[in-house]
Amino acid sequence: MIVVTGSVTARPDSFDEVRRLSLEHVHRSRSEPGCISHAVHVDCENPLRLVFFEQWADRAALAAHFEVPASRDFVRLLQSLAAAATTIELYDAHKIERL
Amino acid sequence: MIVVTGSVTARPDSFDEVRRLSLEHVHRSRSEPGCISHAVHVDCENPLRLVFFEQWADRAALAAHFEVPASRDFVRLLQSLAAAATTIELYDAHKIERL
Repeated sequence: MIVVTGSVTARPDSFDEVRRLSLEHVHRSRSEPGCISHAVHVDCENPLRLVFFEQWADRAALAAHFEVPASRDFVRLLQSLAAAATTIELYDAHKIERL
Repeated sequence: MIVVTGSVTARPDSFDEVRRLSLEHVHRSRSEPGCISHAVHVDCENPLRLVFFEQWADRAALAAHFEVPASRDFVRLLQSLAAAATTIELYDAHKIERL
């Protein structure tokens, strides 16, 4: 499984729009092939920072996700609304336990 | 690396206390040996649900973390304040890319 974490810090004037677009992206992504989970959260230590946590079946599914025109539009829009560069990190992961 | 995700859903009357205890736990955990990152967030789709994302050097560091008395107290307190059973998932993970 591929785990993706990402974050974007909005500006005070762009936060509501970044949050709205992020939720739209989450909901759309969940219906894509190979998407196991996709969610967005607000950092408790920075109310302008949104943090994504995603699980994808494999690298190919994630590559296809990145190529979806709506994904590309989302990333481009985020860049124009963010206070700083966004970050995305990919992990090759397998679940070892559920407590 | 071990990635840990966890979540707890508070009750409306316990949310502020759950959030306070969670941040205290995050800050304390960051100083423990083998803790690479530790953070807590609010689910954008459920304002009562807190979601943790943690990175630990290895399984031994995480086992030591679970044995810290303050960690055990935190888990016990959360159980009394949560609206539903908490979940914790452990992943064996390695970073493959940073975009």
